[in-house]
Amino acid sequence: MANATAKSNKKNLGITTREEDFSEWYNDVILKGELADYSPVRGCMIIRPNGYAIWESIRDALDKMFRDTGHSNAYFPVFIPEHFLSKEAEHVEGFAPHCAVVTHGGGKELEEPLVVRPTSETIIWNAYKKWIQSHRDLPLLLNQWANVVRWEMRTKLFLRTMEFLWQEGHTAHATFEDAEKEATTMLGCYKTLAEEWLAMPVICGLKTEHEKFAGADHTYTIELMTQDLRAVQAGTSHHLGQSFAKAFDVTFQNEKGELEYVYATSWGVTTRLIGSLIMVHSDDKGAVIPPRVAPTQVVIIPMGRDDAIREKTHAEADRIANKLKNTTWRGQNIRVKVDKREKESPGFKFNDWELKGACLRIEIGPKDIESESSVFARRDTGEKQTIPLIQVVEKTLDNLEEMQIGLLQKAQAFRLKNTIRVDTWEEFTKIFDKEGGAGFVLAHWDGSTETEKKIAELTKATIRCIPLEADDPEDLKPGKCVYTGKDSKRRVIFAKAY
Amino acid sequence: MANATAKSNKKNLGITTREEDFSEWYNDVILKGELADYSPVRGCMIIRPNGYAIWESIRDALDKMFRDTGHSNAYFPVFIPEHFLSKEAEHVEGFAPHCAVVTHGGGKELEEPLVVRPTSETIIWNAYKKWIQSHRDLPLLLNQWANVVRWEMRTKLFLRTMEFLWQEGHTAHATFEDAEKEATTMLGCYKTLAEEWLAMPVICGLKTEHEKFAGADHTYTIELMTQDLRAVQAGTSHHLGQSFAKAFDVTFQNEKGELEYVYATSWGVTTRLIGSLIMVHSDDKGAVIPPRVAPTQVVIIPMGRDDAIREKTHAEADRIANKLKNTTWRGQNIRVKVDKREKESPGFKFNDWELKGACLRIEIGPKDIESESSVFARRDTGEKQTIPLIQVVEKTLDNLEEMQIGLLQKAQAFRLKNTIRVDTWEEFTKIFDKEGGAGFVLAHWDGSTETEKKIAELTKATIRCIPLEADDPEDLKPGKCVYTGKDSKRRVIFAKAY
Repeated sequence: MANATAKSNKKNLGITTREEDFSEWYNDVILKGELADYSPVRGCMIIRPNGYAIWESIRDALDKMFRDTGHSNAYFPVFIPEHFLSKEAEHVEGFAPHCAVVTHGGGKELEEPLVVRPTSETIIWNAYKKWIQSHRDLPLLLNQWANVVRWEMRTKLFLRTMEFLWQEGHTAHATFEDAEKEATTMLGCYKTLAEEWLAMPVICGLKTEHEKFAGADHTYTIELMTQDLRAVQAGTSHHLGQSFAKAFDVTFQNEKGELEYVYATSWGVTTRLIGSLIMVHSDDKGAVIPPRVAPTQVVIIPMGRDDAIREKTHAEADRIANKLKNTTWRGQNIRVKVDKREKESPGFKFNDWELKGACLRIEIGPKDIESESSVFARRDTGEKQTIPLIQVVEKTLDNLEEMQIGLLQKAQAFRLKNTIRVDTWEEFTKIFDKEGGAGFVLAHWDGSTETEKKIAELTKATIRCIPLEADDPEDLKPGKCVYTGKDSKRRVIFAKAY
Repeated sequence: MANATAKSNKKNLGITTREEDFSEWYNDVILKGELADYSPVRGCMIIRPNGYAIWESIRDALDKMFRDTGHSNAYFPVFIPEHFLSKEAEHVEGFAPHCAVVTHGGGKELEEPLVVRPTSETIIWNAYKKWIQSHRDLPLLLNQWANVVRWEMRTKLFLRTMEFLWQEGHTAHATFEDAEKEATTMLGCYKTLAEEWLAMPVICGLKTEHEKFAGADHTYTIELMTQDLRAVQAGTSHHLGQSFAKAFDVTFQNEKGELEYVYATSWGVTTRLIGSLIMVHSDDKGAVIPPRVAPTQVVIIPMGRDDAIREKTHAEADRIANKLKNTTWRGQNIRVKVDKREKESPGFKFNDWELKGACLRIEIGPKDIESESSVFARRDTGEKQTIPLIQVVEKTLDNLEEMQIGLLQKAQAFRLKNTIRVDTWEEFTKIFDKEGGAGFVLAHWDGSTETEKKIAELTKATIRCIPLEADDPEDLKPGKCVYTGKDSKRRVIFAKAY
């Protein structure tokens, strides 16, 4: 039965069901929802308008937060001289194996190869050496919106691609404390973005020594849970200490006139966020996108088969669309489309906009006009409502608001249900033994990289983070490592991750 | 005397005068105004916040025009398989010699090298083959904001860099006429951007066969004149005909059910626009930036040496700043900064903000507060005005408006003054004989590439465009070629160009 349903879903909508094959389902939603497409270059993707518009909303939301916290945007070259990468020892080890290298330009072999930026710390800190002299030049708070390239063997649309879009903040500070404050402030911006815009609950935490950024003092992360019970690292904020300042010899004269090395942070989120929100919210009918970042918040489908009726319903649809376009919700004009395609049936259009993730469908038929009403259909719940025409604007606002909040609550409940505390190795291995994700497991760990690696080797579960806060204060108390039995300071989160 | 002034200008402000050395002046304005900086990669530049903010204003202005004309944004991979480039014969000839080539990735040599996109026609038309089947899929109107790389031997900040930022529109149409309308519509957007936002008068015209885009049927351009009397090609819009559709086998079923090749356009403007506006508007004191795209429209300088006075002037400056920030001019909140640096003198600050191109300076001193007034200083005219505090908002709006319009008028008058009609080869060579730019010369040309090349070889003057309109209708009438004496249909524009 489930199999028959799965087959008919694939046949009718072009989408594999989640139950049948989550990975296939994910690819189908991305492709059929026209969020992205494969490209002829292995591991690179094409971001189509319906996906790119989500990225633009993310960009605008974050950009405002960055400005409000004192940052400016700049742009640094895509090419980095190869020897720059090796100036910071941990950094080169982390990134060199994943680089794309330009060896020829203008028809000639280059004297020194150029690396296509995998991240811009090195070229930015080379510039900071020139720009920073005195404590009056600090803090220096820059951000860049750009493409980066990291050679990947196993890629997945949006979640792990060879080229991706991101923002990378790079800041310079006079003290350790200032840099620490910056790193946590930006982590807070990411949490706000994830929860209030993308409706994805995240856990803020510290990465382990083994999982931290190559060159960082320590790394903060936001981690989320997908519907197939895996973890996604959705954004990171690094306190880099003085490592890049030392590597690039960036000092400043402090108020006492002494020379000191500068403290640094860097932080970034990527187009991976788009894949994450698809994995968190979407269903077997296609993309479900939180209203605040949805390219199409409302789609109006005027109905009627003959020309006279069509003229009336199209006019009414346009009237409603104009009203909605001039209405703001959460500070932005509502994004509305009217689907006037003549050759397609209403059923085809309903499916099509469900695939693409329009949040609210408004149907206007000849009978609706007679009764001065319309039919609303919510994308996330599938709920249908008959709404008097006079209340269309008000009820649209209500539905967008309810959907935005509802998606977050649903995801929170899902995560809560799939987070457990485990105290024995037997139970731990049993949970992670099965194929695929197994939710978040809060367990004790002895704090050593050796144990962390061993657990990952045996179970494929990795430490996602050492959470900064706990739902249950007990989680912050000492215990015994789930694998070695040695002392543990507190529980950490294990999961299988993308 | 001129020389002494030049030396003191360089010493005091760090800027060579235009008269002394225009090229040095330009670099000084860019560097001292913190618009951009050199990078360790030859030919690549760093765009600093004061330059990047101009690009963001350009992006926002254009993006709105693109949406209003039905376009959507998308993103295509930065890498293009090498063999794609050679599918269109003229295209490969035009671009292959200027490519950066990735030969290694992930530590291994690639089977096929990847080209870093110099422009995206080929990778986009490869995707359009998949997306376009029927006339109902047309028109397809996409735009991309991205970085591109073209290997250049002689580079100049903003004007010609190896990597630059741009937007590239790529559209597909059912008929030649539709594509033609698209190409001219987008040219119109560029003219609007140049004149109404950047205050740069441009001449719309057609490129000659020799100067058109590699692979285009024909190319439209907007051309402007710099203060050193050279031409800059500031944006282009190409009607590509069916060449890319044929190269990538992109056909569609028309309404009669027949297969046809698709018609295409592409169009782009780049960060070169920032260099252009500096060359058009700036002066020996630094950057002059049209208010609509200026990162800082108003800078307020509170004065006073002791703490008590400073407290008062700072408070007043903040009060004015808040009022202005909440005031809109031309649809946007006014961009204001208050310069509270304590160690710097007012004179230093005045120079500093003139270098950076703040449009209007408002000085608030203790005497001003007593007399309930402030001193305004306009960046473009240098004019000082005493303004009652109660009129600050109103007069700020007036000044921004006057400066926006004044810059365009000044540039128009300058171009008019430096555009001449020439009918003899003797006069033509005399004009272009001297070093540097010589303005726009309207002359007759016999229409052959041979003559065009010969004239360029002899005088370094190139045909900038065949103008679409003429100030003087006589320019559109037939005559005799200034070099060969053969029949000419109309005058064209010759100039030395960047």
